Amino acid sequence: MENNSKMCGKQSLLFANPPYIIAGSSIAGKKEGEGPLGRYFDQVEEDPMFGGDTWEDAESRMMRRAADAAIEKAGLKKDDIRYMVGGDLLGQLIATSFGIMDLEIPLFGVYGACSTMGESIAIGSVLVDGGYGDKVMAITSSHFAGAEKQFRFPLAYGSQRPLATSWTVTGSGAVILDKDDNRKEELQEKEAPVCVKGVTVGRIVDYGVKDSMNMGACMAPSAYKTIAANLNDLGVKPEYYDKIITGDLGYIGKDILIDLLKQEGYDISKNYMDCGIEMFDKDTQDTHSGGSGCGCSAITLTSYVIPKLRRREWKRVLFVPTGALLSTVSFNEGNSVPGIAHGVMIEGM
Amino acid sequence: MENNSKMCGKQSLLFANPPYIIAGSSIAGKKEGEGPLGRYFDQVEEDPMFGGDTWEDAESRMMRRAADAAIEKAGLKKDDIRYMVGGDLLGQLIATSFGIMDLEIPLFGVYGACSTMGESIAIGSVLVDGGYGDKVMAITSSHFAGAEKQFRFPLAYGSQRPLATSWTVTGSGAVILDKDDNRKEELQEKEAPVCVKGVTVGRIVDYGVKDSMNMGACMAPSAYKTIAANLNDLGVKPEYYDKIITGDLGYIGKDILIDLLKQEGYDISKNYMDCGIEMFDKDTQDTHSGGSGCGCSAITLTSYVIPKLRRREWKRVLFVPTGALLSTVSFNEGNSVPGIAHGVMIEGM
Repeated sequence: MENNSKMCGKQSLLFANPPYIIAGSSIAGKKEGEGPLGRYFDQVEEDPMFGGDTWEDAESRMMRRAADAAIEKAGLKKDDIRYMVGGDLLGQLIATSFGIMDLEIPLFGVYGACSTMGESIAIGSVLVDGGYGDKVMAITSSHFAGAEKQFRFPLAYGSQRPLATSWTVTGSGAVILDKDDNRKEELQEKEAPVCVKGVTVGRIVDYGVKDSMNMGACMAPSAYKTIAANLNDLGVKPEYYDKIITGDLGYIGKDILIDLLKQEGYDISKNYMDCGIEMFDKDTQDTHSGGSGCGCSAITLTSYVIPKLRRREWKRVLFVPTGALLSTVSFNEGNSVPGIAHGVMIEGM
Repeated sequence: MENNSKMCGKQSLLFANPPYIIAGSSIAGKKEGEGPLGRYFDQVEEDPMFGGDTWEDAESRMMRRAADAAIEKAGLKKDDIRYMVGGDLLGQLIATSFGIMDLEIPLFGVYGACSTMGESIAIGSVLVDGGYGDKVMAITSSHFAGAEKQFRFPLAYGSQRPLATSWTVTGSGAVILDKDDNRKEELQEKEAPVCVKGVTVGRIVDYGVKDSMNMGACMAPSAYKTIAANLNDLGVKPEYYDKIITGDLGYIGKDILIDLLKQEGYDISKNYMDCGIEMFDKDTQDTHSGGSGCGCSAITLTSYVIPKLRRREWKRVLFVPTGALLSTVSFNEGNSVPGIAHGVMIEGM
């Protein structure tokens, strides 16, 4: 583990000045609010349009709310945020562009499908750790109806969904990374400051799976490669983390991931959790394989994971949002659905 | 200009250890090869399909060639590249995902429309300057036929193009950033090492222009804001640069940009250049307002701008790729076309 270089192993970075997550926000839709995590979200919006005119507009408005809430919870003004790193699932990132442009904060637009929260926190952490910005926001979103329209069939078609499908979470989460947590001392008694210790940047992994209605199977190999790379780079066992948390593999992807890692000699079955599985009640919410989407891991992180670390119930987690790299064009042209996953090491101090 | 902090002014960064651009590659289509810059490109491909089956596949194959050429020109192997930062114009970045996945290099996927080369060099430079990777590749691409299909009308429709339109460049360019240029000493006599001194990260700028057939007008305000921010942050005049080079404003955007900066007290008319204007011969190539696309600025940079710096014909340029943030969905829903532009300060030593 001791390493003077920031570069650790083949894919990982360890931060010399781990950025603090000083605030996180979570805005969720009605269905998510009715799920097991519902009571933890900052805001649950009953109107699926979020007061807007289109699904895309709805997602933009939701993302803007997540940005505003994070800034407010951090006790900051928008001008205090030097850079934003963010993106979403829609073609050309229109949810992000139209959602946050009025904030007038310099933007790095990123796309990693549902791994986006991992990628944006990774880049944001590099910026803060390296002294390129004191305060940087990482943000992402997804909206069930917009994602169905973008990737599958418009809701109005009333298409039946196969049992392997996941349900795209309507949600937006943002974190604010800061070089210091000024509330550290006063809070230390009851709340642990939380920081990003390092990241493992993912590679694209393609096992040739072509079923866009089974995203868990498409993404599990990339989660496997990233988690294995993290453990190998750091020379640690899965037990090093209180939880290893993937973004949205769902029930099918979970089993595949655990099996793949066993072949590598790692048993994560004891301390594994998937945000997509946590998001909905399988028996009552009809969401089949679980939740998915950029927003799934983002709002689970901000509403559930970070508070667990603050309350010192957990000490250290590996947060691994997972993305499926497809478009309707690539899929209809007969391409496979490769995956990518980025790992973020988050610790309570 | 002297500043111990890496942060300079409101939006800019100055690198303490400016990354060297040790190699750059440029792969272009037939029409680009017939233009004024044709003789400078590494490869000109006569087949618009690049040997592939679809326009998207063609773009992926072109990007892969650009990546391979850059690695080869740098005298490296693919395993030497720690991270890639890249993206393209297609929804969900499929040109990039399918193009470079076999390289198995950890990837930060980025989207900044046609500003992507600026964004990817900015993030790549942060990674190298900060010690997060010795060698990082920044890459992007665009393909005329894929872009028409994605944003306007499939070529087979034979639609007429208004005079304000630009012509999406078929091209892919990559640079390799390194913490040092090992060839420095032997080359210093005849070729200047070239490095990235700093960047100005762009904000989204929306002047409410809704004409997706006039991208120059949509993007000029963002170029104006980024160039003004760079000059203000550094406290320099336009003459500080031998050239201020936008990505793809074209003839209409050029005039708007020069006018907007005049209002701010900056006259860039003497040392201004636009890659879109340089790319095609206006009189003979029927490209209306000029070239555009992520590839336009990328291959102009690698084939023409960097060699000028290496030959010491120029000492210092501000490279400002410009992007229009729209999708067919946002456009058809009546939204405006906001712009974003990222500035990269590139110097010969």
